[in-house]
Amino acid sequence: MSEHLALENIRILDLTRVIAGPYCGAMLADLGADVIKIELPGRGDDARAYGPYVNGESLYYGNLNRNKRGITLNLKSEEGKEIFRKLVKESDVVLENYRPGVMDKLGLGYDELKTINPRIIYAAVSGFGSYGRYSKRPGYDIISQAMGGLMSVTGHPGNGPTRVGSAIGDVLGGMNLVIGILAAIEARHTTGEGQRVDVSLIDSVVASLENAYQRYEVSHENPKRMGNAYASIAPYDSYEASDGWFVIGCGNDKLYKQFCDNILHMPELVTDPRFDCNVNRVANNLELKAIIEETFAKKHTVSECVDMILAAGIPAGPIYNVSDIMEDPHIRDDREMFVHVDHPVMGDVILNGNPVKLSDTKVGIRFPSPTLGQHNEEIFHSLGYSDEELAALKEKGVF
Amino acid sequence: MSEHLALENIRILDLTRVIAGPYCGAMLADLGADVIKIELPGRGDDARAYGPYVNGESLYYGNLNRNKRGITLNLKSEEGKEIFRKLVKESDVVLENYRPGVMDKLGLGYDELKTINPRIIYAAVSGFGSYGRYSKRPGYDIISQAMGGLMSVTGHPGNGPTRVGSAIGDVLGGMNLVIGILAAIEARHTTGEGQRVDVSLIDSVVASLENAYQRYEVSHENPKRMGNAYASIAPYDSYEASDGWFVIGCGNDKLYKQFCDNILHMPELVTDPRFDCNVNRVANNLELKAIIEETFAKKHTVSECVDMILAAGIPAGPIYNVSDIMEDPHIRDDREMFVHVDHPVMGDVILNGNPVKLSDTKVGIRFPSPTLGQHNEEIFHSLGYSDEELAALKEKGVF
Repeated sequence: MSEHLALENIRILDLTRVIAGPYCGAMLADLGADVIKIELPGRGDDARAYGPYVNGESLYYGNLNRNKRGITLNLKSEEGKEIFRKLVKESDVVLENYRPGVMDKLGLGYDELKTINPRIIYAAVSGFGSYGRYSKRPGYDIISQAMGGLMSVTGHPGNGPTRVGSAIGDVLGGMNLVIGILAAIEARHTTGEGQRVDVSLIDSVVASLENAYQRYEVSHENPKRMGNAYASIAPYDSYEASDGWFVIGCGNDKLYKQFCDNILHMPELVTDPRFDCNVNRVANNLELKAIIEETFAKKHTVSECVDMILAAGIPAGPIYNVSDIMEDPHIRDDREMFVHVDHPVMGDVILNGNPVKLSDTKVGIRFPSPTLGQHNEEIFHSLGYSDEELAALKEKGVF
Repeated sequence: MSEHLALENIRILDLTRVIAGPYCGAMLADLGADVIKIELPGRGDDARAYGPYVNGESLYYGNLNRNKRGITLNLKSEEGKEIFRKLVKESDVVLENYRPGVMDKLGLGYDELKTINPRIIYAAVSGFGSYGRYSKRPGYDIISQAMGGLMSVTGHPGNGPTRVGSAIGDVLGGMNLVIGILAAIEARHTTGEGQRVDVSLIDSVVASLENAYQRYEVSHENPKRMGNAYASIAPYDSYEASDGWFVIGCGNDKLYKQFCDNILHMPELVTDPRFDCNVNRVANNLELKAIIEETFAKKHTVSECVDMILAAGIPAGPIYNVSDIMEDPHIRDDREMFVHVDHPVMGDVILNGNPVKLSDTKVGIRFPSPTLGQHNEEIFHSLGYSDEELAALKEKGVF
C-alpha cells in the first residue's frame, strides 16, 4: 500500500447541502482530496437539522461530511466573497448545488471564477441541471424519482408508483458529479484548463433505467410495475419460504437446468414447453414461481433454501434488513462497510464505508465531519489573515 | 468547446458482460476513452441474447456498448492469451466482471499483467467483490438489491420487500467502478503505477442506503417500508390529485411556510405543534398528508397542482412513465438524454444519453456498438499480425 492518496493533489471547495453534493464531496474526500466544506454562518448545511442526532449533532450530516474540513462564510458580504476568491485561487474544484443562477448573482459564477483561476473546475448538481427549460425549478430526490421514471417501474402491480426507499436520485447525481469532476481533472492534464461539470438528478435517474427506453422504443408499451420479477430473465424473483422471503437469480439455461435437476428434482421442467427457454419462462413466470414455492421453498426456512441453492451453484440470497447487513461478517468485517470514527461531540459513531476499493492508494475515513466553523481559524490564517483582522470580520458576520 | 476528449489518452480493454461492467465501459467511452470490447468468439456477451431486438441485433447490448470497438478472442488458447498480453502492453485499464479467480486461473490476473505493464489499472466488478468470505458466490443485480438492503426499505407498508424496477445494483456498481478507475488514473500521475480497483454490487447498494444505518445505530429499529414517504423530511411524499398522483418535496421550514401560506392557505399549520418543525412533521406525516390531499390536492388535477406549487417556489412534479420522459422537451431536447445513432444492422436507433455534461471536452455518442468481432482485423493488424497469420489464428478458433 502506497503512502499516497489518489486525490492528494486536489483541493475542493464544497458549497453543497443535504445529500447529492455532500455525497460527491465525501467520495472525493475518501479518495484523498482536501475538501473544505463552506457553510452559512450560524446555521450551516440544512442537513444539520435532519435526524438522527447524537449529543445534539446530526449523524445524517456526519456521514455525508466525513473527511472534510469546515468553515463558515457569508458569501453575500464583500469580505466573504474576497475570502472565497482567495480560496478559489488555491483550489482545483468548486462544488455547488444551489439553484442554477444563484452563484452568478453573487458574482461567483464560473465565468467570474475562471478569470481568477483558469484551471478551476466548476461542478454543479441540481434537480434539473444548469441549462434547459426547467433549470430554474427546484428539485429534490423525490422529484427526480418521479420525473426520472424510477417510481413508474417500481412496486407491485396492484399498487401505485413506488419511491425507492433511499434517496437514490441524490446518490446517483452525486456519483455522476464525481465521475464528471474526475474526468475534468484528467482532461486538465491535457488542456491545462478547467471547465464546467453539470449534472442533474433527473438525467441521473433517467440513465439508471438502463434498457427501459429501448424496450419502449421497440414495443411502444410502457414498462409495467412487476413486483420483484424482472422483464428480461426468469426465474429471477423473490420466493416465499416457511419463515420469510429470499431471492433467486437464474441468469441462463444452464443455471435453470441445475436448478430443476438439483433443487426442484423435477428434470421434466427443463423441457416443459412453458419453461423450455428464458423467453417462455419470463412469459410464464407466475406459474413457475408457484411451482418453486409449493414444491420447494415453503417446505424450508429462508436459510435452508439459500444454502441449498448456493450449494448447487445457483445465485440466491436472503432479503436483508439494515441490522442483518450491519451484522453480516462479509459486509461488515471483510468489506469494511461500516467504519467507526471518533467525533468531538458525538463520540464513537459508525459511518458508511466507501464502496470503491483501491489496492494501492487507500480509500477510507481519516477524520470525522466538522462542527460548524471548526476550521475557520486554521484556514483563514493560512490565507494570511491576522487574529485582529479575523476578529473584525467575525464581528461583521463574515463567518 | 475543445477538440480534446476528457479521456482521449486512455485505452481500456473491456472483458465484461451484461450490465455493470459494460455500463462502466460505456461511460468511459462516452468520456472519450478508446474502449476495446473483447468477446467470446461465436457467441459474445450474454447480453447479445437479451431483448429487445432490432433486425436480429440486441438493442439492450447496443445501449451498453456504444462507442466501443469490438474484437473476439479465445482467452483459453495460448495464442489468444498472447494477443491479450500485447494489448495489455498498450493499454491503461483492464475491465473485467468474471467471478473472482477466473482471470488468475487463465494466467491473466493482476499479478501477471502488472509484470507486463506496471502502469495497468486492473478493475473488477462482481456480486460480492474479489475478496471476502462470499467472494466466490455468484451475484446478480437482484441478489445485491436483496442483500444490500434496498428491497427491505422499498415498498408500501402492507407489501413485502420490493425490488427497484431497474437493475440499480448493476448501475451503481458500474458507476463506482468508473469512479475507482478515474481515481486510479489520477493517482498514477503521482505514483507512476497502476493498481487494482475492486467494486462489489452488494457494497454499492449498501452505500446507496445513505443514512439508514445511522438511523438504526441511534434507534436500534430497522427502517420500515414507508411507501413514498421519507424518514427524514416532510411533507415529502406522493399525493393524490383528482386524476392521479404527484410528488412534493418540502426540504426546509421556509418552503413549508410558503406551502402553508400560499397553497394550503392555512398559515396556522406553521405553528401547529404537530407540524412546527421538520422532526414533528415527519412524526405526523400521515395527518399532514391527509390535510394536503383533502384541502388541496384532490380538488385539482395533477397538472394544476404541480403548476400551482411550482409557481409558489416549492419543489413538485408529476410521476412520469417511460413515454412521458421520452417526450418531455426538457429531458429529450434540452438535456439530450436520448441520442439517435446509425447502427450497421439495426439502422437508426435511440440510445440513452450520458447524464454527465462537460462544457469543454464533449461527452457523447460518437459511434454505435460493434457487431461481433467487427474490429478484429483493424486491431490485430495494429499489433503487427499479417493477413496470413490472422487466417491461421482464425482457423484455430483463436478469434
